[in-house]
Amino acid sequence: MNRIYLDNAATTPLDPQVLEAMMPYLQNHFGNPSSIYSYGRETRLAIENARKAVAKMLGAHPGEIFFTSGGTESNNTAIAASIRDLGVRHIITSAIEHHAVLHTVEHFAQGGSVSLSFVQLNGDGSVNLADLEAQLAKQKEAAVPTLVSLMHANNEVGVLLPIEEVGKLCEQYGAYFHSDCVQTVGHYPINLDKLFVHFISGAGHKFHGPKGVGILYVSDRVRIKPFIFGGGQERNMRAGTENVYGIVGFAKALELAMAHYEKDSQYIRELKQYMMEQLQAHVPGVSFNCTANGLYTVLSASFPKTEKAEFLLFNMDINNICVSGGSACSSGASVGSHVIAALHPGDEKVTVRFSFSKFNTKEEIDQVIDQLKKLL
Amino acid sequence: MNRIYLDNAATTPLDPQVLEAMMPYLQNHFGNPSSIYSYGRETRLAIENARKAVAKMLGAHPGEIFFTSGGTESNNTAIAASIRDLGVRHIITSAIEHHAVLHTVEHFAQGGSVSLSFVQLNGDGSVNLADLEAQLAKQKEAAVPTLVSLMHANNEVGVLLPIEEVGKLCEQYGAYFHSDCVQTVGHYPINLDKLFVHFISGAGHKFHGPKGVGILYVSDRVRIKPFIFGGGQERNMRAGTENVYGIVGFAKALELAMAHYEKDSQYIRELKQYMMEQLQAHVPGVSFNCTANGLYTVLSASFPKTEKAEFLLFNMDINNICVSGGSACSSGASVGSHVIAALHPGDEKVTVRFSFSKFNTKEEIDQVIDQLKKLL
Repeated sequence: MNRIYLDNAATTPLDPQVLEAMMPYLQNHFGNPSSIYSYGRETRLAIENARKAVAKMLGAHPGEIFFTSGGTESNNTAIAASIRDLGVRHIITSAIEHHAVLHTVEHFAQGGSVSLSFVQLNGDGSVNLADLEAQLAKQKEAAVPTLVSLMHANNEVGVLLPIEEVGKLCEQYGAYFHSDCVQTVGHYPINLDKLFVHFISGAGHKFHGPKGVGILYVSDRVRIKPFIFGGGQERNMRAGTENVYGIVGFAKALELAMAHYEKDSQYIRELKQYMMEQLQAHVPGVSFNCTANGLYTVLSASFPKTEKAEFLLFNMDINNICVSGGSACSSGASVGSHVIAALHPGDEKVTVRFSFSKFNTKEEIDQVIDQLKKLL
Repeated sequence: MNRIYLDNAATTPLDPQVLEAMMPYLQNHFGNPSSIYSYGRETRLAIENARKAVAKMLGAHPGEIFFTSGGTESNNTAIAASIRDLGVRHIITSAIEHHAVLHTVEHFAQGGSVSLSFVQLNGDGSVNLADLEAQLAKQKEAAVPTLVSLMHANNEVGVLLPIEEVGKLCEQYGAYFHSDCVQTVGHYPINLDKLFVHFISGAGHKFHGPKGVGILYVSDRVRIKPFIFGGGQERNMRAGTENVYGIVGFAKALELAMAHYEKDSQYIRELKQYMMEQLQAHVPGVSFNCTANGLYTVLSASFPKTEKAEFLLFNMDINNICVSGGSACSSGASVGSHVIAALHPGDEKVTVRFSFSKFNTKEEIDQVIDQLKKLL
């Protein structure tokens, strides 16, 4: 039996076309982009073309796009720089952020440089906008420089943030706004030109690009210092010899994702819908931890806790089906998902995240349903 | 005319064998190493095998090796963590460190978290050990927790640090010791087990490995917190989905470098020696900014400043010869080399760094000498 990979929110296979775009830089064009001779300028040009392409697709200026080693570094940079360079002293975030945000803000809060508050969430994980507004108003009244850090889409349950509305609230109350967009860059059209947001993060490997590369968008509205100091790379904003193949691959992957967005997203949406229907038809007691208009790539399902259900992930693995309990980044720990725990405290269910890509098929879903029927 | 690449201290071509080792992870084995199912464990295993191999080759424990996005991140991590987690309040460094160290320590000094002092250098760039000892003694007497950050080999003039002796001094005076080994990891056998050093940094692309990946060695003697917070990767020390291909490539490149060290280093040594002889024979007024027992990969030569010499780099480029004035990382700036400026203040010469790899040939050097004769 072939492997069935339904964990695309954790990471995605590199698109062969992306690898093809990277290969010249892995094989021949190896010059250091900072070198002044023409051979270095070749790779420099590749990077700047990638930056321009990414900026254009996201509705940003090239000067607002910085390449990093991934979404986590981007999130760390935005948060650290907000505190150090923008004078932020309070951060409003949520209990269901990715650890790349949650552990970072907790670190700074423990160190005493900021205070933290968590916005109230509705049952589906969506942000209670009235509570967010109340918190923003309180910080504004106390004249405390504030950062809002809320993810565009949750990686476990797929709930989407109304990013435009949150941006407007931040603008109204004079707060800085960072959004971890790791699950949406490459999956949704994003037009930063129309949003009030200071920082967004993206990661190549979440949309068939390479691992080890991400972007940080830093709006022209703010000026920050580097997170990683050294050479003058990335216009003095992110030191270190550039990961040229990664950067080229990131841009190519985003280009493919946006060119085929309508078709691919429709296809994946249908797969998710089909899986929901099949689960409801064949698995008694199944429930879903996501709203109808959440991330089209993610389906979080819960099953009644039985002896069989407790070994579900284990048995799916034995049967070559890749799915996850929560996010990959926290799955090493045996503590379970902090997202599910925050949304459904005391829940006695077994949660499985199925997440889809353009490379999945209906036949795979049929096979997974067959296995689930046997295993539960 | 083919391109002649003599800028291997800036970056090196990826060895085809390294790319071959990376390909399975670029093509098929794409699972997230943090996923719990077997498919994720495949890539996790690749990372842990790479860590074990690297640790063994460097005389370290696997638990002391952390993969990062490159030498610059490694240097930043060591310095930031020394201040934040080890309580360092004074840093002794040198004026000819790479900007990845120099700009980082300057950043923290400007922020007031540490004081800085620069060790006296001899004319060839070597550290004045008596001065280092005097500075260490002074800090010890004042009970100021101190970090010594000195590079193992200078990237521009190739002078080597007597790392064992510096380690002994640090041990004697109770200081922490970080060494930027970006120019020596993969170029010299390093046995960390025999050294007193708390942190060393290495970068894959300096020895025919991939860009975008490096290591930080953190001695078991110290315990630090992450520089980049988030998921539990790298045993909670460096968050972010691992650059699997990069890590696999780093280990393979180091394996090749160490397996062929005797042969390759002898070959490159002879190329450098040949180039020195040829320059002396054919270019009047040439002088060298390196000692006989410096880095075998780097030859820094100075030429009398004439109208022709001032356009030397430009004309070498036109003739498809890749060499640099200083380091690549600072060549974007028009300020010239801070290393040459520190060692030869007011020098009216034109400096060119030739740096060699196993892929260079005597014939290439003959061609470069021919060009130099024409251009000067």
